[in-house]
Amino acid sequence: MPGDLVLVPELLAPADIADCVTYAPGQLPDEVVRGGVGFFVPDYIDSPNPEWMARFPALQVAQLPTVGFDAALTYLPEGVTLCNAAGVHEQSTAELTVGLIIAKWRGVDRAARDMAEGAWKHRRGRSLQDSRVLVVGAGGVGRGIADALAPLGCHIQLVGRSRRDRIAGADELPDLLGAADVVVLAVPLTAETDGMVNSAFLARMADGALLVNVARGPVVVTDDLLAHLPRIEAALDVVDPEPLPADHPLWAAPGVLITPHIGGDTDAFPRLARQLIARQVQRWRSGEPLENVVAP
Amino acid sequence: MPGDLVLVPELLAPADIADCVTYAPGQLPDEVVRGGVGFFVPDYIDSPNPEWMARFPALQVAQLPTVGFDAALTYLPEGVTLCNAAGVHEQSTAELTVGLIIAKWRGVDRAARDMAEGAWKHRRGRSLQDSRVLVVGAGGVGRGIADALAPLGCHIQLVGRSRRDRIAGADELPDLLGAADVVVLAVPLTAETDGMVNSAFLARMADGALLVNVARGPVVVTDDLLAHLPRIEAALDVVDPEPLPADHPLWAAPGVLITPHIGGDTDAFPRLARQLIARQVQRWRSGEPLENVVAP
Repeated sequence: MPGDLVLVPELLAPADIADCVTYAPGQLPDEVVRGGVGFFVPDYIDSPNPEWMARFPALQVAQLPTVGFDAALTYLPEGVTLCNAAGVHEQSTAELTVGLIIAKWRGVDRAARDMAEGAWKHRRGRSLQDSRVLVVGAGGVGRGIADALAPLGCHIQLVGRSRRDRIAGADELPDLLGAADVVVLAVPLTAETDGMVNSAFLARMADGALLVNVARGPVVVTDDLLAHLPRIEAALDVVDPEPLPADHPLWAAPGVLITPHIGGDTDAFPRLARQLIARQVQRWRSGEPLENVVAP
Repeated sequence: MPGDLVLVPELLAPADIADCVTYAPGQLPDEVVRGGVGFFVPDYIDSPNPEWMARFPALQVAQLPTVGFDAALTYLPEGVTLCNAAGVHEQSTAELTVGLIIAKWRGVDRAARDMAEGAWKHRRGRSLQDSRVLVVGAGGVGRGIADALAPLGCHIQLVGRSRRDRIAGADELPDLLGAADVVVLAVPLTAETDGMVNSAFLARMADGALLVNVARGPVVVTDDLLAHLPRIEAALDVVDPEPLPADHPLWAAPGVLITPHIGGDTDAFPRLARQLIARQVQRWRSGEPLENVVAP
């Protein structure tokens, strides 16, 4: 029956789902299959294909394998429910955040480069103990980062959209920036956060502070960041533009560590994504409410 | 009076201690001062000087700025009390351990090298979630590592000299090695641990497992490790020999990340070391028992 099929990337196909069709990266199925797709899982970061949604006339649900959904919103057909992968990437992103801060402050990145020359260069590092970390974004990723950092003895302040409990509100952010040793960006990309980290934001950061972006590249205005390096330092898992062209000045900017958007992508990802997809297909088929609905 | 003076490296001199003489790295004081030294703090890793102990005829206490005390034992004069810096480095070493595991499993080291070529190379990483970590050494450093790793969702097994509570004994180690995704070395260098990680030890480690050495270089037999790379991977903050000569094959061995013995050396170190030294001098002068006595 049109709309009964589930279309999933090969890597993310759960084991026990009826009427499930898998696809290899970039391989759009034939017209018969396309007409039957009711539940679609777009591919992961390497082969983004949210525009396929418009090719499935019977589509009801698009289940993203990512937490971020800004790119998919643009292509979302009328009447299709969009779900993200909250719960699947938080731990991996939190791990990477901890790893990036420690790598930067202990010089693991410089040591990796020194290895090529056989250079043993002892340098004193900076400890997270007693440091002040501001985590901008109080969703699952932000809270996961705070949990992972807590046992390292730093003082953590979460910043959400509005004040609640021990979470500061976005209106308090300008006053909090100056006192932070580390500012971690863990916000979704929205109209409010697009370009949020501009010259005014960066100018408030203390000398020697570290900016960590594990959110989305466009949250930071790249040219503004370049102007503040190396007065502040930066560890960036996401950048704008992405992928960063080989001749972009950010690659060689002083005080920067760049990883190629690997925040949520670990061996834990396919396992947790398969579990989520299986749960969602079951809910969809039995008419229960879906998890993680982000639009409409 | 002979034996009243405290001799401390400039960097580690507490603010409020009477009869305290400081020295710059490598600058042995004149004969008059040497005759008066009763409490001596050797220098840190860059300028080791435990052999100075023999030059202070009135010496009563040598307070090391390190946790490891193997090098100092060789030079310890009869009747002198040797104390280590337990409590000063644990957190910094635990942080580095977490950072090294994440750097290795997420490819932060490769990303740092890719930056030089402007190369954006996305690769799937490995998550600590549900991984099995064996921490060999159940002293302050080992326990600090376990505490720092706990919130990352891995299964941690501490191994001590003898079985107690939930700590496994050294006799169980051979059977535990094969099931570990990560083996962290956090033991002191002693007659038992010198060369402990040899071919027999490494052969028991699973394919693709990661060996992390934040203990002392000679705990691992370097040539044996070279023979097992890259079947297993390694993140080494300490190596044998140290510093590693520029032409040593370990620098270019596949699957290795090397940092130059920075485990305990962060900005937290001088602060915590000064606090420890101030406490110890006060105890010594008031005849109270010293902390951290490791010999005789």
